[in-house]
Amino acid sequence: MNEQSTFDEVKRRLAEIHYLGRAKALFDWDERTMMPPGGAESRAEQVAALVRVRHEKLASDELGRLLDELQPFGEELSYESDEAALIRVARRDHEKARRVPVELLAEMARAASVAENVWREAKRRNDFGLFLPHLDRNVYLRLRYAHCFEREHVYDPLLDDYEPGMKTSEVTAILADLREALVPLVEEVSPRAAEVDDTFLRKTFPVDGQRALVRRMLGALPMPSESWRLDETTHPFQMSLSPTDVRLTTRYDEDDLPAAVFAALHEYGHGLYENGVDPALDGTPLGRPTSLGLHESQSRMWENHVGRSLPFWRRFYGALDESFPGSLDGVGAEGFFRAVNKVQPSLIRIEADELTYDLHILLRFELECELFEGELEPRDLPEAWNERTQSYLGIEVPDDAHGVLQDVHWAGGDFGYFPTYSLGNVIAAQLWEKAREALPDLDNQIEAGDFEPLREWLREHVHRHGRKFSAAEVVERATGRPIEVGPYVRYLTSKFRTLYG
Amino acid sequence: MNEQSTFDEVKRRLAEIHYLGRAKALFDWDERTMMPPGGAESRAEQVAALVRVRHEKLASDELGRLLDELQPFGEELSYESDEAALIRVARRDHEKARRVPVELLAEMARAASVAENVWREAKRRNDFGLFLPHLDRNVYLRLRYAHCFEREHVYDPLLDDYEPGMKTSEVTAILADLREALVPLVEEVSPRAAEVDDTFLRKTFPVDGQRALVRRMLGALPMPSESWRLDETTHPFQMSLSPTDVRLTTRYDEDDLPAAVFAALHEYGHGLYENGVDPALDGTPLGRPTSLGLHESQSRMWENHVGRSLPFWRRFYGALDESFPGSLDGVGAEGFFRAVNKVQPSLIRIEADELTYDLHILLRFELECELFEGELEPRDLPEAWNERTQSYLGIEVPDDAHGVLQDVHWAGGDFGYFPTYSLGNVIAAQLWEKAREALPDLDNQIEAGDFEPLREWLREHVHRHGRKFSAAEVVERATGRPIEVGPYVRYLTSKFRTLYG
Repeated sequence: MNEQSTFDEVKRRLAEIHYLGRAKALFDWDERTMMPPGGAESRAEQVAALVRVRHEKLASDELGRLLDELQPFGEELSYESDEAALIRVARRDHEKARRVPVELLAEMARAASVAENVWREAKRRNDFGLFLPHLDRNVYLRLRYAHCFEREHVYDPLLDDYEPGMKTSEVTAILADLREALVPLVEEVSPRAAEVDDTFLRKTFPVDGQRALVRRMLGALPMPSESWRLDETTHPFQMSLSPTDVRLTTRYDEDDLPAAVFAALHEYGHGLYENGVDPALDGTPLGRPTSLGLHESQSRMWENHVGRSLPFWRRFYGALDESFPGSLDGVGAEGFFRAVNKVQPSLIRIEADELTYDLHILLRFELECELFEGELEPRDLPEAWNERTQSYLGIEVPDDAHGVLQDVHWAGGDFGYFPTYSLGNVIAAQLWEKAREALPDLDNQIEAGDFEPLREWLREHVHRHGRKFSAAEVVERATGRPIEVGPYVRYLTSKFRTLYG
Repeated sequence: MNEQSTFDEVKRRLAEIHYLGRAKALFDWDERTMMPPGGAESRAEQVAALVRVRHEKLASDELGRLLDELQPFGEELSYESDEAALIRVARRDHEKARRVPVELLAEMARAASVAENVWREAKRRNDFGLFLPHLDRNVYLRLRYAHCFEREHVYDPLLDDYEPGMKTSEVTAILADLREALVPLVEEVSPRAAEVDDTFLRKTFPVDGQRALVRRMLGALPMPSESWRLDETTHPFQMSLSPTDVRLTTRYDEDDLPAAVFAALHEYGHGLYENGVDPALDGTPLGRPTSLGLHESQSRMWENHVGRSLPFWRRFYGALDESFPGSLDGVGAEGFFRAVNKVQPSLIRIEADELTYDLHILLRFELECELFEGELEPRDLPEAWNERTQSYLGIEVPDDAHGVLQDVHWAGGDFGYFPTYSLGNVIAAQLWEKAREALPDLDNQIEAGDFEPLREWLREHVHRHGRKFSAAEVVERATGRPIEVGPYVRYLTSKFRTLYG
């Protein structure tokens, strides 16, 4: 075979692997939005089979041999070319897959599936002991997984699955910088924030009105209507089957209007990233977002930088008011904006305000590192959790359901995932600062409902690249700087000092 | 390896193949119920990749070698045992797959996907010429496919994909018998049927009322609510991801109440079959219905034998009346029953009454055979279609949209599919006759809303076997007779002579 035909054969094999991954994504989406409960048992087997077949293809000797053959070809090409990136990323995926025995992968999937069901029950019954053996098992299996790889730090291989190329030491440094800036800022702002009136948010907002409002808002944002759909689920998420088949979700609770609105904007940000990947990359390993951190930067940008801004509510306050006739009398755009930005240290991560959110992440990241370094036993997690909540957020944890059992991640075996939330916040602010430089009229555009310039800037500098570049490379190319907390701290300081005088 | 471990390894491989098939089923379901239009292009590639990977695994040398090793083991077992059936059915699937080059399969899938889109446009524009080149291509590819197999008749391999083990000569005989009985019966009944009052069915029935009625009816039929869901689509279908994950669909048109009701009952019958397969067979090639003919026997039984019966409408007339207050004044259960059984030769198969339905199938089956025997060219289909419609149904075809272009099957390349509809009718009546013998109180049970005895009889004699036995074997075991038209002709004659005095 000559180089071109070897390259074509590699592409064909990678397409199969990519589409097997999309089939698993559809199973996951369906499980969380559509599947009747009776489907659960078979679904676990269906997903396990797809994971196995995909892994087998990705780790195959034959793919390795073809990639070896292509190595000199790839090295001659420009680093920026689609072809070079494809060979580079495919080799990385292949080499990672080869290190992990398929039985371990299957066992991780199975243990996670069982643990998630037990966790649900344990959370409901506020019984950490019930969950503990499954947590033990997940930690043990992830430790075995980490030991499949060469590493500086035992946590590196876990982190790498979500944030390719990022090291534990880098995240530690970023989060330390963040902690140093956030803790005093929270202390400064909190007392004054307590005076903000958000009592009207405790009203009942009928679900039909929430649905109408969310549809109106999403319909006014720039993503072609034939390329996405919106469904309802318990824990909102976004999943894409192709750049033009984006599945958004949100949840409606008549006692929690902000949950529906901001989850929808958050998932929209994720979806817009997927939608903006260069269509030429679809069907290849490059045709997806490059890391969870960068993914989260897009969702947090639309949720917070756009969605919790005053210009945004100047735009949508009319729609909001029309959706709940009489409920918001006298509140006004500015009152609503202030209420949805009220700072208040709280127990639950997903309900946290923008300023205290990262303290929740810091806590989880530290505990995860200690778990995998062997400095903390799973059985001691609740105590460590509660102590650190007191120390970072200044609040008492009343029970494990509102503490260590609150998130699904550890039940799902997703260690290494949490820090990508804060990386997302950091990157979002860094990109946002740069976008504002390029679009000096951005506030007015948002207030006028013209989101196209922002979308175009994001597409050009972030979305279109797919997995061609790492998150760090994307940020460097877009902003000329490595990932750094400066812009995020400036953004938070400016926003909350302005808000609270 | 000893026999048991070889058997386990074969089962593991077959499970993978089975679940890859279910992943394709989910893609298909999603495409027709959920997918945003933007997903179409990528979906074709996603499905093609799954088809290719599944075929590769099914046709693999290694699976063949393992099945060879198991041959003596399988022959020692009772024909009725799950293990013997698994080996038998897997060998059959494997040998069929080996005969077909994967490139031909992929090309058939691709051509069908293109042809379906062109067909939609051609039907809309009433332009057979637009569709013709794609029809030519489909026929050519299916002819190549048929030539991959040894055969008595060129149509046999096509038929075998839908009705395993059935020969063209057998279908020809069954349909000839049917034609001989049906044509005079239609002639006898039609003039008197014209007097039946069904004008009230032309009223507008609000879609919300139809939805409520269909939910009430399906909710009263025996299938656990956690095992199925109901969605809306243009062309109703049923698809199952496992025996306890059944996806029903129907369509709502305010000008066509019977369409929604009878499509829902039809798809329910399909779903109940899937739901009744022995759970121990899930995840193996035996865990699905055995043929389209037997599948259709179950849907037609619930649609017609149950759903178009007087006891059924005595049961559900109240619900019907409540769903459309004031619309049915004075009609009554018997009036409704008579109206939905009005015999009237018509142009469109899916709108045909029970008595003339099979004449539509006969016409298609004959044309398909002639096409593949080379006695009819695709370009001459419209003329042949129109002549035969005149001859069998006594009506003039006004244009191709209401004639040769009405069904999607030939666009999808599904030659060999149509006769399974009539086989389904024939088998339904044969099983129904036997079920009535076993359940002499069946009419009263239906009128009392007690469908359990019927479900149990069907599960015991039909559903639970999955693919362990062929349709002919299932019928023989359940009724003691080969598939034969006698019971169907007796049923139609008795029903319509009674109806029309």
